[in-house]
Amino acid sequence: MRIPTHDDVKAAHERIAPHVHRTPVLTSASLDRLAGAGLFFKCENFQRAGAFKARGASNAVFGLSDAEAGKGVATHSSGNHAQALAWAARRRGIPCHVVMPDDAVAAKKQAVAGYGGRIVECEPSYPAREAALAGVLEETGAAFVHPYDDPRVIAGQATCAVELMDQTRGLDAVIAPIGGGGMVSGICLALSAVAPDTAVYAAEPEQADDAARSLRAGRIVAGVAPQTIADGLKAPLGDLTWHFVSSRVADILTVSEREIVEAMKLMWTRLKTVVEPSSAVPLAAILKHGRVFAGRRVGVVVTGGNVDPDRLPWMAG
Amino acid sequence: MRIPTHDDVKAAHERIAPHVHRTPVLTSASLDRLAGAGLFFKCENFQRAGAFKARGASNAVFGLSDAEAGKGVATHSSGNHAQALAWAARRRGIPCHVVMPDDAVAAKKQAVAGYGGRIVECEPSYPAREAALAGVLEETGAAFVHPYDDPRVIAGQATCAVELMDQTRGLDAVIAPIGGGGMVSGICLALSAVAPDTAVYAAEPEQADDAARSLRAGRIVAGVAPQTIADGLKAPLGDLTWHFVSSRVADILTVSEREIVEAMKLMWTRLKTVVEPSSAVPLAAILKHGRVFAGRRVGVVVTGGNVDPDRLPWMAG
Repeated sequence: MRIPTHDDVKAAHERIAPHVHRTPVLTSASLDRLAGAGLFFKCENFQRAGAFKARGASNAVFGLSDAEAGKGVATHSSGNHAQALAWAARRRGIPCHVVMPDDAVAAKKQAVAGYGGRIVECEPSYPAREAALAGVLEETGAAFVHPYDDPRVIAGQATCAVELMDQTRGLDAVIAPIGGGGMVSGICLALSAVAPDTAVYAAEPEQADDAARSLRAGRIVAGVAPQTIADGLKAPLGDLTWHFVSSRVADILTVSEREIVEAMKLMWTRLKTVVEPSSAVPLAAILKHGRVFAGRRVGVVVTGGNVDPDRLPWMAG
Repeated sequence: MRIPTHDDVKAAHERIAPHVHRTPVLTSASLDRLAGAGLFFKCENFQRAGAFKARGASNAVFGLSDAEAGKGVATHSSGNHAQALAWAARRRGIPCHVVMPDDAVAAKKQAVAGYGGRIVECEPSYPAREAALAGVLEETGAAFVHPYDDPRVIAGQATCAVELMDQTRGLDAVIAPIGGGGMVSGICLALSAVAPDTAVYAAEPEQADDAARSLRAGRIVAGVAPQTIADGLKAPLGDLTWHFVSSRVADILTVSEREIVEAMKLMWTRLKTVVEPSSAVPLAAILKHGRVFAGRRVGVVVTGGNVDPDRLPWMAG
């Protein structure tokens, strides 16, 4: 297991700068009043391909040698990483193979296909996914880019926190949602170098609270088929992300499904940004655990905005 | 009629800088592909009080002498100007009186009241509104701040275009929605000084096309009770805004209600920004009148984001 370093982050930032947006930081006086804190929203929902995943994916894709790149890249994901990897591969002009369960939402398949990705369907089980991926790798010789448990991906995500610290005048804390832990690991990695006194928090749905339970247990605890509206946060921690989470995260705060939807609506109406449910989990945690953040300057990573406006969680049916 | 000058714009920019956001400019590769043009979205939906109106309102409010300010400000508006004026007045700690028809949407009244504005209800007719306003002005001695036909307001709105030109490396054209014409006049005023070769376009709903008809007729033509989903664009031109529109606007392009809703959804899904229907009218016009903008660099003013997420135009019922 190779642990990425701050030199990897600097290299990543230089490598991906021509490809990704330096996303803006938004503030809202009314949300500050509600939270009793100063909130700085780093808007990765405005990122290429609609989520922070473009950072890690492009760092992996553009870090390949020409010989490696010629064989393409592959991953398993039905979420934003799949889209981001397909997007990055198209930018480099190389093939991208994505293993997806055959019951994945049609819109997600279309998004990957829209970026030119090749979808390999498999049955919706862990063994089937692993078998399908192994088949793709053997057939194509493509480079596997894990959605989060990969030093290139974590170094890429870390560039987001470097920018956030650069765009604000010091923060007491940074909070992000946690699923597999790629973004949170990137924040830990970045802040350890550029802001060692800034605390790192993670936020998680109660109904997918494996990371919070892992932190309490002192070892990775897997969730059992978690069900949550924040569908980007169902993945379990990996060995590499656990390294960062276990050593640097101050706390992992959990919130209910109802609190997530309420926070999502607040971000729509107050920040005027389209966010997916996962992105609302940190604000929900700040509002619920007010005493943790009271009077502090808090960076909030808004992770993505890929949501279907015809299927919003507060719509009937 | 006093025509504001670029000196007024510079004074406005200095005056309002401590109060308003310098809003970001967003771009989207996929919208550029759809439009066949380079689009630069100036996101005033992220502005204080949720719309560009905060610029003109705060310029008027903070330009008052202490003696004038002590008597407060007043206006007639059931839209974003009312909220913005109440917001600016609260920032200065002075009263704000808003004349509104008694059939105005409850959410709009609440928004004004939430900023501390005093609502004076009247019957929904032009004579009733004028009578109610006259009564308020006589009773309080407040300074009247017209929603758009006011040199202080136009100079304030002009700061948006100054920033947009500063944030981009030159633009061939700038387009904004037109109702009463305050924002479009501000753009004309600003560009005449800082970018005389940049063309100004306005966009308007077909169902509220009085400005387009006025431009063709060469005189102000009033609409008759226009009905459109873009409810911020129903107001008629004023003498002062007509001065700018008639002398500087290249064309006024119209779009259907369906095209507005489609463009609004595109801005939600591609730009990830929450916009109100009025703000989608320019993109709808760009997509409809593609040949006008093909291959050009176009600034698009996203005027506001005050929309009820429970009542989106594509929701049933």
